[in-house]
Amino acid sequence: MTTSAPGEPSSPDGISRRAALGILGAGTAGAGFAAGAATTASLAQSASTDGDPRDAYPFYGEHQAGITTPVQDRLHFAAFDLTSTADRDGLIQLLKDWTDAAAAMTQGRDVGRGAVDGNPLLPPDDTGEAVGLPPSGLTITIGFGPSLFDDRFGLADRKPADLEPLPLFAFDLLQEPISGGDLCVQACAHDPQVAVHAIRNLTRIAFGTARIRWSQLGFGRTSSTSTGQATARNLFGFKDGTANLKSEEPAAVDEFVWVGDADQEWMTGGTYLVTRKIVMTIENWDRVQLAEQEDIVGRSKGEGAPLTGSAEFDEPDFDLGTTDGTKVIPVDAHVRLAHPTTTGTRILRRGYNFVDGSNELGQLAAGLFFISMQRSPEQFSAVQRSLATDALNEYIRHVSSAVFAVPPGASDGSYVGAPLFD
Amino acid sequence: MTTSAPGEPSSPDGISRRAALGILGAGTAGAGFAAGAATTASLAQSASTDGDPRDAYPFYGEHQAGITTPVQDRLHFAAFDLTSTADRDGLIQLLKDWTDAAAAMTQGRDVGRGAVDGNPLLPPDDTGEAVGLPPSGLTITIGFGPSLFDDRFGLADRKPADLEPLPLFAFDLLQEPISGGDLCVQACAHDPQVAVHAIRNLTRIAFGTARIRWSQLGFGRTSSTSTGQATARNLFGFKDGTANLKSEEPAAVDEFVWVGDADQEWMTGGTYLVTRKIVMTIENWDRVQLAEQEDIVGRSKGEGAPLTGSAEFDEPDFDLGTTDGTKVIPVDAHVRLAHPTTTGTRILRRGYNFVDGSNELGQLAAGLFFISMQRSPEQFSAVQRSLATDALNEYIRHVSSAVFAVPPGASDGSYVGAPLFD
Repeated sequence: MTTSAPGEPSSPDGISRRAALGILGAGTAGAGFAAGAATTASLAQSASTDGDPRDAYPFYGEHQAGITTPVQDRLHFAAFDLTSTADRDGLIQLLKDWTDAAAAMTQGRDVGRGAVDGNPLLPPDDTGEAVGLPPSGLTITIGFGPSLFDDRFGLADRKPADLEPLPLFAFDLLQEPISGGDLCVQACAHDPQVAVHAIRNLTRIAFGTARIRWSQLGFGRTSSTSTGQATARNLFGFKDGTANLKSEEPAAVDEFVWVGDADQEWMTGGTYLVTRKIVMTIENWDRVQLAEQEDIVGRSKGEGAPLTGSAEFDEPDFDLGTTDGTKVIPVDAHVRLAHPTTTGTRILRRGYNFVDGSNELGQLAAGLFFISMQRSPEQFSAVQRSLATDALNEYIRHVSSAVFAVPPGASDGSYVGAPLFD
Repeated sequence: MTTSAPGEPSSPDGISRRAALGILGAGTAGAGFAAGAATTASLAQSASTDGDPRDAYPFYGEHQAGITTPVQDRLHFAAFDLTSTADRDGLIQLLKDWTDAAAAMTQGRDVGRGAVDGNPLLPPDDTGEAVGLPPSGLTITIGFGPSLFDDRFGLADRKPADLEPLPLFAFDLLQEPISGGDLCVQACAHDPQVAVHAIRNLTRIAFGTARIRWSQLGFGRTSSTSTGQATARNLFGFKDGTANLKSEEPAAVDEFVWVGDADQEWMTGGTYLVTRKIVMTIENWDRVQLAEQEDIVGRSKGEGAPLTGSAEFDEPDFDLGTTDGTKVIPVDAHVRLAHPTTTGTRILRRGYNFVDGSNELGQLAAGLFFISMQRSPEQFSAVQRSLATDALNEYIRHVSSAVFAVPPGASDGSYVGAPLFD
């Protein structure tokens, strides 16, 4: 057992990172002060990007981890389709097997009998590339796509009314092979090798039942979900997600993230996960003058302050006008159109930068793999409709779209999604 | 000025990471001991994978950084072709501009006037996504491909005899669009956002003169170049590069890495860089029984010990036989065929794992982006010829190949490759 507060990571020795820092502060009085202070700063700096390798988040709980968990810096996301031979029992077994494997890997343990401890005349249960690596803050979040609720698995009458493919939005250029999916797994960790190991082993477990439809790696979280995290920058070079929902706002999280009085009881305590792969034409962006970049975003590039303020967290004044009769924050500025006062709603963003190498023009194939969590996909849709006139649209292309129902967390001994099959 | 030993990273406050740990040890006697010990362990653990974000390696020096530098955990590698309108002066200007930008970025500074400090009516000099991030151990290593020495830039008579495209090896399935290149830039860092920022800005600087031919991201260094680094694991789940050249063997590094009495004087103090993108058919591998995996590699999967020993760094006994007349380390085991006693030479490996998402079969598009440094490409070729009968060949495909002459380091005020144009 650990002494961590809920939602706080524990380390294998039972001392949470926050507690360790507290102890360090107490222990550095006197002669050790200078060294202690330097070390505290180093840890804090490290935590702002990579986190502590010893972080281990519980897999079992009321909600799945990887939603309000402070955003880890690396992502491997995979969407799966069930195979043509899979049936309801196979789906249930897959979810049980995934639950067991996820519960092990998130605590820094190998899958099953491990990579080296089994029968040498059998293939190992675990693929082995994470042997010796710490838990690294790994979370594994499992979701169900709309297509899972067709007539294949007897789930048609359990489909939530909210779980429909997203509508087509302005400027959408979606590619079907990298959109949608029956199931999804989001693996986030401080170390990409740990995230990749998780997706690889869950994919291996699914062999014969489900296979990857598409997948995406990401880095450099572009949102914070905790006030303890500095705001990160997207590949336009701007701070992103300043006004994001934070886990320290429990009332707002309850209002905007967790499903409450659902039409489908099995979704109570769950959420809806939206992914959008957004290609950025960064070569074009990089030729835009600084002042215009700031007008398009509506914030300063350095501090990230709204153009009507001087500090990042200053509230934007959307009414403030200039002497020539326009608004200081232009009417088509991203910050205006994405702001809760415009959209009327809030979402929990959890996206990542991506670079998929380069394209045939020698340009970086780069952008934002947008992820948001909300109690209804309609919240995302309201934001996306508002962005139809966003000046940023000239520099981005939405090329994939998916939505998944993320069921509540499982209790130890059960499995993720069990109430769906009751 | 810092107090770092040569080759040791410095932090902006002039205290090297090693020195900081030393101070910490001294400062934690008495009441603070327990907390201090935990923190030291945490830092050491972090350093074994991600390194200290404050690491800043000098860009200028006798040799380029990113060769014997302790391998950072993330890679962005790009090969460039000069455009049809580029001339000799343009090439020289590009190398000067790259040198200036690399010298800034490796110290944690923005390119040119920075992302936000220039004229607001001009595009910023720096793209901005690394603003606020520490140096993160960034190194930038520049090389020249064989094609640079054709008749375009007046360099034909400066071509080293060693700089020829690699021959075709057994089982090569090379793809031309992701092989070769006039120039290369290897960016390694603890933070992928820092490595990506470097390649992006160097690509931007090259606009009109050179463009990316191909690029590759990697993570999870599969080699160590320092005895202070734990051996990492490749995507077969095995420790890789145990017998790699280490920077703590200066005589061996001089013998096998740095060009000495070259036919082209400008390469003295340089090295040759070979890249090979090696796709691993990991789904097939994962179905191989543990004992056979270990026979193929010639090492145990857990400890990484040779099959004739019990600890990772035990010397393999290639002569030891079994009672049935075969060898304990099979004749086609990877460790036997790659070992210096078999190949007659050594190379400095600096490769990375990669996952480029998934392919149309739902398999992970994964493998090893192999990088090696050696005083002659013939050293790599000797190793690769030896691997023609490697049992691992059933599970790997070499799909790209490149070789670059890496000139020595530049002195402050000059630029990388200057002696080539004297």
